[in-house]
Amino acid sequence: VDEIAASLSTPASDVHIVPGLSCTNRFGATDYMRGEETQILGAVSLLKPLQSGRRLLCLPGTHTKWVVVEAGRVLEFLSAPTGEVYQTLHAHSVLVRDMDAKPFEREAFMRGVAAFNQHPQAQLLHRLFEVRSRQLKGELSAAEAAGFLSGLLIASDNAGGVELAALAGTQTPVAVIGAPALTSLYALALEARGVGSLQLDGSLAALAGLTAVQRQFELEGAT
Amino acid sequence: VDEIAASLSTPASDVHIVPGLSCTNRFGATDYMRGEETQILGAVSLLKPLQSGRRLLCLPGTHTKWVVVEAGRVLEFLSAPTGEVYQTLHAHSVLVRDMDAKPFEREAFMRGVAAFNQHPQAQLLHRLFEVRSRQLKGELSAAEAAGFLSGLLIASDNAGGVELAALAGTQTPVAVIGAPALTSLYALALEARGVGSLQLDGSLAALAGLTAVQRQFELEGAT
Repeated sequence: VDEIAASLSTPASDVHIVPGLSCTNRFGATDYMRGEETQILGAVSLLKPLQSGRRLLCLPGTHTKWVVVEAGRVLEFLSAPTGEVYQTLHAHSVLVRDMDAKPFEREAFMRGVAAFNQHPQAQLLHRLFEVRSRQLKGELSAAEAAGFLSGLLIASDNAGGVELAALAGTQTPVAVIGAPALTSLYALALEARGVGSLQLDGSLAALAGLTAVQRQFELEGAT
Repeated sequence: VDEIAASLSTPASDVHIVPGLSCTNRFGATDYMRGEETQILGAVSLLKPLQSGRRLLCLPGTHTKWVVVEAGRVLEFLSAPTGEVYQTLHAHSVLVRDMDAKPFEREAFMRGVAAFNQHPQAQLLHRLFEVRSRQLKGELSAAEAAGFLSGLLIASDNAGGVELAALAGTQTPVAVIGAPALTSLYALALEARGVGSLQLDGSLAALAGLTAVQRQFELEGAT
């Protein structure tokens, strides 16, 4: 894992930029994060379970990051455009027709999770048309379609995350860091697979990360 | 597999509507086709290899259909919104930024197919961010991004199709029916998995299907 930007400091302003990270991920592709590294630093400083052993972090969002950490260091990570796929299919496909439909309709979300988990080896593409066909059949209302779609996508994302955890040999619980409405969906989907998780608000994590960086600068200035 | 619309006949006009089909697919979801059944009828009448044994047909498009036929009957089918996912991600995500980029850039398409096939068990969502990160790294040009994305998606769709073929016990070659520019991509991706295919132009198949229906009516009228 490499840093992708240097910090910047001028005598007048003393502004610092926390560098992002790049790595070659498990599938041999270059991967990037810019911003999440600060939240990870904050999460490790706030959450005791992350301070020992090898741990898996999940930072869900437009581009979800799955991150393996050990002893305060990032060992590897993997990005998945889960939020972006959800948003584009919601807004621009025939799968969801009710534009007011929300992904946080919990019962429909859990039905999507359960549907995916019944056939976890299936290709995600071979499950997505159900969002439409179940509406045609009357099994799913227009308002429930977004929640069901979100359930399929997050269950697929979590299946890959759990696979990464097994390959990297991480211990549970998984730390899920981000907007509370979203981390709660990931935690529910992980629970449906029998995987325990901790949730941390992403803005608290970012603040704690920036505080940790500031303290590091002060310590360096004092020596 | 059930018919979803009856044919219509009036003394004055003698108009007939070929009914669509519905089934409960392999994942327990209701599935629908409207139009492809006519192409399937045409393909079976035109292509000798489809007239014996149990066969897999692939009708790629906005909503790709994978269809198992035997003795001129549809046994089961499965829809995948592969074309729609491609189109929405191309037009509305950060994965493809060059709006003129085409999926038919063959070399980039084959790189996407090969990348997917190296880790066929991975979740598709965990491979899609590569379309962006490989551009940031300079491994993929903006013009090649669409082809690479198309390769990942079609390889995933084909992996599910080949899995369906194994579970349903169909014989090769797979018949790929549709627009020639698209059937050639599916045939290339199947070949990369060692699966032989035949291609048939979708408009020829539709015409042959309608002709077969007309002949059936004439035969019924003559008896």
